[in-house]
Amino acid sequence: MRTVYLNGEYVPENEAQVSIFDRGFLMADGVYEVTSVLGGKLIDFAGHAKRLERSLGELDIQKPAAFDDLLDIHRELVTRNDITDGMIYLQITRGAPDDRDFVYPDPETTKPTVVLFTQNKPGLADSPAAKVGIKVISIEDQRWARRDIKTVQLLYPSMAKMAAKAAGKDDAWMVEDGMVTEGSSNNAYIVKGNTIITRHLGNEILHGITRAAVLRFAREAQMTVEERSFTIAEAQEADEAFITSASTFVMPVVEIDDKQIGDGKPGSIAPRLREIYLDESRKVAI
Amino acid sequence: MRTVYLNGEYVPENEAQVSIFDRGFLMADGVYEVTSVLGGKLIDFAGHAKRLERSLGELDIQKPAAFDDLLDIHRELVTRNDITDGMIYLQITRGAPDDRDFVYPDPETTKPTVVLFTQNKPGLADSPAAKVGIKVISIEDQRWARRDIKTVQLLYPSMAKMAAKAAGKDDAWMVEDGMVTEGSSNNAYIVKGNTIITRHLGNEILHGITRAAVLRFAREAQMTVEERSFTIAEAQEADEAFITSASTFVMPVVEIDDKQIGDGKPGSIAPRLREIYLDESRKVAI
Repeated sequence: MRTVYLNGEYVPENEAQVSIFDRGFLMADGVYEVTSVLGGKLIDFAGHAKRLERSLGELDIQKPAAFDDLLDIHRELVTRNDITDGMIYLQITRGAPDDRDFVYPDPETTKPTVVLFTQNKPGLADSPAAKVGIKVISIEDQRWARRDIKTVQLLYPSMAKMAAKAAGKDDAWMVEDGMVTEGSSNNAYIVKGNTIITRHLGNEILHGITRAAVLRFAREAQMTVEERSFTIAEAQEADEAFITSASTFVMPVVEIDDKQIGDGKPGSIAPRLREIYLDESRKVAI
Repeated sequence: MRTVYLNGEYVPENEAQVSIFDRGFLMADGVYEVTSVLGGKLIDFAGHAKRLERSLGELDIQKPAAFDDLLDIHRELVTRNDITDGMIYLQITRGAPDDRDFVYPDPETTKPTVVLFTQNKPGLADSPAAKVGIKVISIEDQRWARRDIKTVQLLYPSMAKMAAKAAGKDDAWMVEDGMVTEGSSNNAYIVKGNTIITRHLGNEILHGITRAAVLRFAREAQMTVEERSFTIAEAQEADEAFITSASTFVMPVVEIDDKQIGDGKPGSIAPRLREIYLDESRKVAI
């Protein structure tokens, strides 16, 4: 049984409950982050904490009292749940007022709800999928317009994942106005020669913490980075394709809408970026 | 203290809690309905139950065991909480699996979460606002694409309501591709002469239960109904404007983006439709 963190207390997971009036439950009024743990240490923690602060600010959710203790709470959960490799999920909502109302509750009386829990994933960085690559479908992007804010409005990404599963594939790339935005819970990339192409930042995609790191490493390794939109057709003709996220790191994509990418096996760039990302991230893990 | 319904039990509101793993809390994976109570009886209950069933179907959420008992549960809550006028809020989520995953949990082991609670609103049908009308701003519609499904992804409508409040107004009309979709939690209408104009049904707006009834009554009263899109500019030049919802019934709108509609007072059609709707709905309330 996991120990989870809920509003200042460490409790058994089956006792971790929130009010039905919590705005996370009634109105999806909350944000989240997922931080990976490798060798018992946190990967890119500072980046996640910074993005979390931005998400809260964009929604005018007050920073919870525990905000400055988040690193300690993450570490405490790693220790209590004996996590070597895995993830730590963190969610903050606008809290639980006395009643339901579209108007935000008074922040003086309604304090944010803070939840953290671990997911134990032994061998997370040695995923067999990384060796063979994943297959994706394309699907219309029907999410709200502010995907740069990491909110818990995850119903559509969940539907997209189910659509991929129903098609016998691993994930879905979302398409808006003919251009790929991102994967269901990851950023999307294609490779042409020595050039890595991924959508430019904006409100249309999540500003991935792993994305930022991988692009930096790619530039340091003398690869060319183009931040621009691309179509599914261009992706299908690319030399390689891959995704990045906090929990999959860099993951090759070998098929898009039933069309094999390259020879249908991971190329050389994505696996190399995965190795660099994992090596460099482990060095500075805290 | 209210008594609320949670998964088969009637409990004090401060004891009504759901797991942090509930998909309603983690992923906004749930739907809801709000039914008004007037004189202790339910308004349009059958319409809400039917739309609820459709919302569940669209999301592949199984109908909970309690589905056929929903009328009894509504009535029991009215009795226990001594509600003469008010609302009953109902929410069903995909339930609380053992862990967080974008993939839907197995419906054999994870059963939907069912929550109902009352909101006591004495004199709900005699709202002072109905006599003077409300003022609205326009705001870009940034919601997801499936607004015909009544999900709990209400963060943007809540932000829209706050934007209206910050501007000193009552509500916001959302605009997409230059055309009004609907209000933050209501359908939007304009009146020109004897013609009532409201956006046609589609995925872009909620298929209001009150909307359907009001349009039926309007046609029976020999008014012309045009179901089509309109702009804010056309609305500002209209003779009247109004909104409908389960809890505001028919509510005149007297100002849009600082521009007075007509003479800035409720016209004749909206108040008349409000009266007809309330009279007819009370007759068949159950």
